[in-house]
Parts: sequence; C-alpha cells; structure tokens
Amino acid sequence: MALRGVLRLGEVCIRVLDMAAARRHYGDHLGLHEVMTDAEGKVYFKAWDEHDHHSIVLNPSDRAGMDHFAFKVYDDATLTALAPRIEAFGLPVTHIAAGIYPKSGRRLQFVLPSGHTMHLYAEKEQIGNTLGTLNPGTTPDEGVIRGLRINRLDHTLLGGVNIDENARLFQEVFDFDLTERLIETESGMSLALFVSCSTKPHDIAFVLQPVPNRFHHVSFLLESVNDLVHAADMIGKHRIPVEVSPNRHGITRGATIYFFDPSGNRNEVFAGGYVHYPDTPTLTWNTDDLGHAQFAQDNTPRESFLTVLT
Amino acid sequence: MALRGVLRLGEVCIRVLDMAAARRHYGDHLGLHEVMTDAEGKVYFKAWDEHDHHSIVLNPSDRAGMDHFAFKVYDDATLTALAPRIEAFGLPVTHIAAGIYPKSGRRLQFVLPSGHTMHLYAEKEQIGNTLGTLNPGTTPDEGVIRGLRINRLDHTLLGGVNIDENARLFQEVFDFDLTERLIETESGMSLALFVSCSTKPHDIAFVLQPVPNRFHHVSFLLESVNDLVHAADMIGKHRIPVEVSPNRHGITRGATIYFFDPSGNRNEVFAGGYVHYPDTPTLTWNTDDLGHAQFAQDNTPRESFLTVLT
Amino acid sequence: MALRGVLRLGEVCIRVLDMAAARRHYGDHLGLHEVMTDAEGKVYFKAWDEHDHHSIVLNPSDRAGMDHFAFKVYDDATLTALAPRIEAFGLPVTHIAAGIYPKSGRRLQFVLPSGHTMHLYAEKEQIGNTLGTLNPGTTPDEGVIRGLRINRLDHTLLGGVNIDENARLFQEVFDFDLTERLIETESGMSLALFVSCSTKPHDIAFVLQPVPNRFHHVSFLLESVNDLVHAADMIGKHRIPVEVSPNRHGITRGATIYFFDPSGNRNEVFAGGYVHYPDTPTLTWNTDDLGHAQFAQDNTPRESFLTVLT
Amino acid sequence: MALRGVLRLGEVCIRVLDMAAARRHYGDHLGLHEVMTDAEGKVYFKAWDEHDHHSIVLNPSDRAGMDHFAFKVYDDATLTALAPRIEAFGLPVTHIAAGIYPKSGRRLQFVLPSGHTMHLYAEKEQIGNTLGTLNPGTTPDEGVIRGLRINRLDHTLLGGVNIDENARLFQEVFDFDLTERLIETESGMSLALFVSCSTKPHDIAFVLQPVPNRFHHVSFLLESVNDLVHAADMIGKHRIPVEVSPNRHGITRGATIYFFDPSGNRNEVFAGGYVHYPDTPTLTWNTDDLGHAQFAQDNTPRESFLTVLT
Repeated sequence: MALRGVLRLGEVCIRVLDMAAARRHYGDHLGLHEVMTDAEGKVYFKAWDEHDHHSIVLNPSDRAGMDHFAFKVYDDATLTALAPRIEAFGLPVTHIAAGIYPKSGRRLQFVLPSGHTMHLYAEKEQIGNTLGTLNPGTTPDEGVIRGLRINRLDHTLLGGVNIDENARLFQEVFDFDLTERLIETESGMSLALFVSCSTKPHDIAFVLQPVPNRFHHVSFLLESVNDLVHAADMIGKHRIPVEVSPNRHGITRGATIYFFDPSGNRNEVFAGGYVHYPDTPTLTWNTDDLGHAQFAQDNTPRESFLTVLT
Repeated sequence: MALRGVLRLGEVCIRVLDMAAARRHYGDHLGLHEVMTDAEGKVYFKAWDEHDHHSIVLNPSDRAGMDHFAFKVYDDATLTALAPRIEAFGLPVTHIAAGIYPKSGRRLQFVLPSGHTMHLYAEKEQIGNTLGTLNPGTTPDEGVIRGLRINRLDHTLLGGVNIDENARLFQEVFDFDLTERLIETESGMSLALFVSCSTKPHDIAFVLQPVPNRFHHVSFLLESVNDLVHAADMIGKHRIPVEVSPNRHGITRGATIYFFDPSGNRNEVFAGGYVHYPDTPTLTWNTDDLGHAQFAQDNTPRESFLTVLT
Repeated sequence: MALRGVLRLGEVCIRVLDMAAARRHYGDHLGLHEVMTDAEGKVYFKAWDEHDHHSIVLNPSDRAGMDHFAFKVYDDATLTALAPRIEAFGLPVTHIAAGIYPKSGRRLQFVLPSGHTMHLYAEKEQIGNTLGTLNPGTTPDEGVIRGLRINRLDHTLLGGVNIDENARLFQEVFDFDLTERLIETESGMSLALFVSCSTKPHDIAFVLQPVPNRFHHVSFLLESVNDLVHAADMIGKHRIPVEVSPNRHGITRGATIYFFDPSGNRNEVFAGGYVHYPDTPTLTWNTDDLGHAQFAQDNTPRESFLTVLT
Repeated sequence: MALRGVLRLGEVCIRVLDMAAARRHYGDHLGLHEVMTDAEGKVYFKAWDEHDHHSIVLNPSDRAGMDHFAFKVYDDATLTALAPRIEAFGLPVTHIAAGIYPKSGRRLQFVLPSGHTMHLYAEKEQIGNTLGTLNPGTTPDEGVIRGLRINRLDHTLLGGVNIDENARLFQEVFDFDLTERLIETESGMSLALFVSCSTKPHDIAFVLQPVPNRFHHVSFLLESVNDLVHAADMIGKHRIPVEVSPNRHGITRGATIYFFDPSGNRNEVFAGGYVHYPDTPTLTWNTDDLGHAQFAQDNTPRESFLTVLT
C-alpha cells in the first residue's frame, strides 16, 4: 500500500524524421542528457533528476508520432499480478523478455482501447542523478541543469477513440483515480479524461479523436513558474515553434508551454498543479467553459490544440 | 545632476465609457486604490507603493482613449527652465495654475508632434504608501497589495505621427536617452521609439500610426515574473479580455501581459527588463526580426498589437 | 495499488497555552481558516487547498507539545486490514468509534515506539477548497489565500526514542519508503529517519531524542520559494520568533523557514524538495556533513534545532 | 537632466591575499567573467549584463580590504564641472591621466571624509554583454549567465568615520538623495546613511566605524528572489563562508545574502528593493527597531555585521 503498484510514466518512444535535428532539440535545446544510441539507431535521453537510465527514446522514422509509452511498476510481482487482470479486461498481453528493450527488465505489452501501445516494466538500470547517495548535497554541478531546466518526464496525453474505456482500464485494473474530465455540456460525452496514480493531477490523459493511436504531447516537469518563464525565453531564443506561450491550464492548474519538436511532435513543459489524493473530488469541466478549462489565463481555446496530433 | 529634471510618468488620464465597470476593473480587479472622485466625476487611483496622491485618472466620456499624460519633474525651477526650451522646440506651452488639477501644483501643457497632450508638474500632494517613514518595515498590511499586485504606474506607449520628432523632443529638451528603436529594415523608417529618463528600459515610447493622438497602452509595474503569472491567473479568473498572455518583449526584455479595460483601452502589466544607463548602447531592431522584437517567447507578431488603439 | 493504503498526514493536534494568541498565530498570521470550536474549547483549522474539514487542532493546555497526529487511509477496509498488522508489530490498538473525533469516522489509535500517539482514519467530512467541482477555475477569491499563503499541512517531525523501530513500523506495516537517514559517522547510529508514502521526500520523520514523545515541528506546504520569501516577510512583519530564516535542507532538498508559535511549538513552512518514488535510492547523510544535511545554504547546524522540542 | 551627472558605481578594486583562490571565488563560483590580467598582476572581471570592460578589480596584496572605488559620470564635462566643486567641499583632487587605469579615461581621485579613496571617470572601453546591438534578443547563450547569476555590480557599503560628511558630499556635490538613515534612538547620531543617484534605494552607503577607511561589502545585483535562492544553493554547495543566509533588509527592502571571499572580504548578492525617486521621503530607522532595520525576516541583528570589516 502507500505508493505501490503502477508508479509512473517511465518511458516515451517518439518517432522523429531527422535525428540530427531531434538530438539538437531534445539534447541541446531541451537540455536532456543523451545516454545511449542503440544498434537500430534509436537515441536515448534522461532528464537530470531521474535515476533510471533513460526516459525518452527517439526512433528514426519516416513519420512522426509515438511508438509506445511505458509505465514503471513497483516490482516484478506487480507485473505478474497485472497480466491476468489486463487480459481479463479484454486486452491481449504480449510478454517481452528482459533485455529486448535495452537496460530494461521484462515487459508486458498491450494495446489500449484507444489504439496506443503500452508497456509495463519493473526494472530499468539506474544511473543516478549525479548527486550520489552519501551526503549528496542539493545542487548538481554547473551544466547538469541546462537548456529548459527540465527535472523529469512528467506525463503524456494520447488522442484516440474509446477514451472512456481507457480511463476504465486505468481505474479498474491499475487503480488510478479519475482526477478531472472535460465533457460536452449537452451530451455529457467525454472529450478528455485525466487519471493519476500519484499525488500529481495527472500521470496520463486521453483526448477524444476520431481515429485511434494519435500522439498529442509528452510533458516535462519544471520546478516552478520561474523556470517556466526561463524555458519560454530559451524556446524563443532557439526559435522553436510555439503553439501556446506561457499559460495555465484550468484542468490540473498546471502552468504550461506547448511547442513542437522538428518532426512536429508536440512537447510541453509543465510546472505546478494541485496536490491530488484519492479522496480529492473529481473535477468536471464542460464545454460551456472550454476556454478556461484549456487556458485559464486568457480563456481562449486554441483550435490546433484539439486537431494537430502526430 | 544624478536623477534630476524630468523624473517619471506620474499621471495618465484615461477616458472610460462606463465608470462602474471601470472602477471594478481598475479598483477591484487591478487592485489600484481609489483615492478620490472630483466634481466632474473623474475618479482617481494610486498604486500601493506610490507616494503621490494619484497616478491614474478615469474620465467619464463617450469615447475611449487618453486625455493627457503627465511627467513629474524634480522641482519648480525645472518647470521654469523647461518652458522656454519646449517653446524653442516649436511647441506652444500653456501654463496651468496650481490647483486646477486636483492635489497638483502648476503645470506646463503642450501638444507633442504626435498629437498627444502632455503635462509637466513638480508638485503633487503625497499620501504615502501606508508604511510610514519611521521604522517603516518592508511589508504593508494584508489587503494593501491586492488584485494584480501592481506596485507602480510604469510607462505609456503612444501611437501617432511624427514619432521621430517626439523622440527628438524627449532627447534634446528633456534629456531622455533613446534606448531602443524598431525600424523598417529596407527604408530605415522608425516604427517605434523607446526613451528613458531613468534606469528603466523605457519611461515612454511611441509607435508610428497613420493618425495622431492614439493611445496604445498604459503599463503597470510588477515586482517579478512570479507576480506576472499571478496577475495572469487573476486576469483569467475575472475574464478580462486578453490580447497577449504572459510573454517577454524582445524590446526592453520586459515580461508582459496585454489586456483591455471594459472601454477597450489597452493595459499592460510589466516586470523586469534590463537596467539602462545613459552609456548603454541604443539597441536597434528591424522588421526582419519583428516577431522576436515584439514577443520574444514565441516570435509571433500580433496584428492587433499595431492596429488596435483608442 | 497506485497510491492507496496510508495516504497522508491529515491531522495534528497541538497543545497551546493561550488560545487567543494561538488563534492569532495560526489564523491571522499563518492564514489558516478557522472552521470550528468544539465543546472542549479545541479550535479547528484547515489550509485553503485541503478538501477535508480540518487538519490542525489546537487544544488548550498548560503545556505545549503535540497530543496526537493522524494519517488518513484510503478506505475503511484499509483500517480493518491494518489493525491486526499493527498489533502483530507489537503495538496495542484502541478502536475509537466514529464521531468521537468531530467530523471523523472511526479511528485506530496506538502509541509508536517513540512514545507518540498516532491515529489512522478513513473518513472525514469534506468541505472543499472554495473552488467547487464543476468548472472550478484555478484561483480562489481574494482573501482565501492569505497570511503565509499555506496550501496544505505537509508533514511532522517527531522526537523520541527507538526511532529505528518507528521507521520499521512505517516501512513494514504501512509500506512507507525510507527516503533519507542521518547517521552518526562512526557508530552508524540513526539520528534522524525520513519516510514517505507518496512522491514527497517525507510524509513524516523521526529524530532521536533521549526522552520519548517530543514534538519537533509541524510543517506546512507552500507553492514555491517565492512564497517562502513572502512568508519570511510576513513572519518578520508579525515579529514571530524565528529559529532559521529562509534556507534549504540538504535532507529532502526542501526550502524551509522555522519559527515558533506563541506556546513555543515549532512550525515550518516548506517548499520544493525532490520527487520521490519507491525506486529512488535511499540517501544517507552522516555527521561529517551535518551542517549541509541540515541547512545546505550555509552549512551551519543550529544547536537549538536538535535540543528545543515541546 | 533626467539621469545625468554621476551615474553609478562602476568599479571596486578589492585586495586579495591569494589570487588563485580569489579567481576561483569571483570567477568560478560567483560566475563573473574574467577579462584581463594587467602587468601588476591585477585581475579584472565584469558581470555578464554590464557593457563596460570591467567592474571588479582584484589586487594581490598581503591584507584584505578595498583599494578604491569609482563612480562613472555622464561625460567629460561632468568631470570638469565636479573637480572644483569637490575641492570647494574641502577635498583635494588628484587628476589621473587617461590610460593610467587600464581601458579607462581620465579620472578624478580624492579621499572621502570617511577615509576611502574614490575615483570619478567618464570613459571606459565597452565590450558589451554578448547580445550585440542589432536584434539583440533577450537571452545570452548557455554558460554566459552562470555561478550566482549576477547581472551587475550594484553598490558598496563603506565603514568609517565622519559619515555625515560623506553623505553631505554626495548630496550637495554629487546630487545624490539621502534615501534612508539609521540613527541611535536617544542621541540621534547617524549609524548608517544610504544615498542614491538613481531609482535604486542606494548606490552607496556608509556605516559608522571607529576607524577610517574600512570596507564593509561589495554587492552584486540579481534579477529576483528566485535567483537569490539559487545563489544561496550555489554558495552552500561551494562551502563559501556565509554570514547571513537569505533574508530581507528592512533598510532598502532588498533581499540579501552575505558571505565572504577567501580573503575575508564581505560580498553581498542583492535583489529587489523599492523604486526610489528624488521625491520619495527619506526613511528613518532607529535603534529601537535595529533588528528589523537590518534583517527584517527574523529581526535579529548580527553582531559581526557591524564589527567585521576589511
């Protein structure tokens, strides 16, 4: 009990069209740390304050989008326990042996009702955050925190069909809480659903799309709105295409910037948001207040935000 | 010497269409302190950390815009010295006796080459910032800093014709420095000019418009980008119409939000910007980099920004 | 799984010598919201962004200190499951019926190896955070966030004997993680132990003392170091006795201020700290680096910090 | 007029005992940019956002302290005008030819009533802030802002005798304003005097000491309290001796950290403070409120603060 079972989003594998441009974006500009290139040409990155070997994988491809995402679970017994529950929910599970994915223990792989490929794993090699574990201090050496000053991979937003079924899977099988939902006022139809397995306002979210398996964005955690403003300055300096300059989501209360990688995949930097607990009431937003739900500092919905996905 | 002569923008008189709505905006929402209503129905406000009686005057009218703005000068001798210099520049000066403008000493009034009415005054009644002058402490009582947490009136941007002449007046007669200019790349024509009499990156600025005497915005000083984000939250909460949510100007390096009062007059909250001195080189921006000059965090010029004035 | 079982510190009951002074401190100065006085004269407070009815209880007494603290658990079944496990650990459990503690469901009560009285409960009346649950917005009305701008009750630090046994209880019975420990370099003896049931660097901690059942401090969560500086300004304005002005703990990486309530009970405001997960390595500090472990911005241990408790 | 005459503190020449340690401190740890070593072994530094060639000079010596400080004035005519006024005040002026001080135009040198050597100069070679002057952008390349993220040299505090005479010189001859003063309550004797030639709450200050020509501290400007907290983290990481961890002065309202260079010279990083104008009332603090005057976040005077000088 306490925080156990499914822990966090631990890996997002993103398809990129031009690896040189992508490395410049995720490495030089975002400031993630490149840790490995594998035999297939995939390039692996971690954020400075993560302990695991990597959290972002760039896969060279001829189309943008997301290959898979993966949640880390507490231990191998969790994997063993979850596999039959996922299958009982109706999703066939593929068992992937340890080492197939580099630095990673065995994985469960399955396809969400929304069409996305999800992994669960319990083990990944840890390389630490440069501070060590004995008298670690608080502050890494100059240059470790760089670029957009990203601390961690935070969450992902997936676009697809059957998002109510996605949310039901995460709630019933993975014990996530439904923290917020955006519904169409008249019909009550779910337009977006936000679920959490921690004290964060969301660990993953789903937005309704007419087609399955679309990638809306991957989001990175910043320490404060001060770092968000710094990130905005660096994004502007590097002429990174921006969709939404600094704002705050009504949903999650998190401060945000949306921008695109050179392949057109959407990125977010995110700071703040309320502290969620399982007994926090689920918040409902309807389309009467769509602007405030999306971007609460100017109440202006961005059309691209619901239509541009990879 | 040191900081003497013309000191700062001390007063902006804004025309408003609906005084009840305007008081709610400038008082309840912005958090300025209402200090007086005069016999003509004008309503006077001050920001909390200003010592003078008022800095914003709302004038009930059937059209939006600015009636006049006023700079405070060091002393009466400065007024005496400046009057003939202004006239020598070619601008007739009207002498307004003390008391005609409430709480104010005598004024010089003249019309800028851009068509705007400007005042100079040396005296205004001081009512202080609530902290007193003996062992004042650092922090006013709860409720004194409120709304958007505005510290002071900061600057104004005027739209009009002959802006080069305006800048020449401020430089030659008032000893301001030209801190920055935005020019059309090919022709070199001045599109916007920024001048300072202090260490601020601008105390007033002028933007070229096809017609004289247009009001672009009045700007209020916040302490930090943290307060800017707070201001954005409050602006969004009160559903104030926003033109540009948090961003940073390339010109001045100041962090900014633009929004409108209920009459359509543009307001800005502003934080930061570099420290200017008279020996700081003048910075030039051209239209090749217009987006970054205007809004450096997304490099996106806003068309309304150059066309919507009151 | 996910975040389940024992959720968070939900209540601290503090003894105060002078209720009028205590209400001024916790209400007017800290800005907690007073919600109730009960028949025994206990006064109840909540922080603005908590949903439950109260988190701080002030108990009029002739000596300072803590009466009890309580953790909220996920549901009644958790209580049922934990009772025999606590007894199996060797601690007799008293069952307290619903309603004995106001607004609260049934409780388990037991005494920690360190001598402190702890409660577990699954239900407390919810009164919300003023934002509602339908289109809630992001920002409460002016005046709701006030005083030190405290968001939530965060954690408590208890001083006593047998702290290794305390930590073992929290790890083995309540599934907390040992996030950090401070040991004497030569002997390896535990001087302080920090445990978490969430992604916080600690939900409760224990510091070795020669006598049982001492209260070191209760800590309140602020949103950012900016709010920490604001809190420091307000603490200074109200002449609240300060033990440690703004600093950062090496342990937890949290930014901190320590001060005392009028009865001499220590309070902390806290911001930041790293994101903990169960797979984050336990960090060890030894007395070779005691200053940095305690106060990493000046590396100066405060003697009072380890000797003044209530 | 406007900001003319004496502009700002432009140079402080500090004696250091161990140049290698001093370069590590001012260069690597503070993050100032080393720009030159001269034939005498003096090492020159600038802060990133200054345009002039240098602002800090380290002079190898066998005792700590300050050799001289220098203010930059508007132009050569200002020097010409000030020389006889300084002599009329009673201070002999030495004329130092251009080039004697590297990269510098001619200087006036004289000794203050407090015993300190002061220079005035109008010209210093400008090397810029790395951003250029055409479409400069807002943000320098990664690594330019580093260490403590210092923007500029801000002010200096000198300890000595006759500080009332110092203040009179700065007010009567240099047109500074007396912004604040700390007096002994009973006698009214000046203990510290703060004067400004700009909108800063002080450009230089004087603290009464029983002996002349003592150096209290040199202060560097940070952009925000957020950067102050970052600076504190770096100061702690590098185990720099700290006198006062983050706090806020009552006097000036500036946020502050005091620490020592390896030779024992006191440094400060400073952020914020109110906006001063010549018509801002002079603030008076007396020794009844000495703690709040000095350190308003804990109201605790530090004895070393008034007794340790170099």
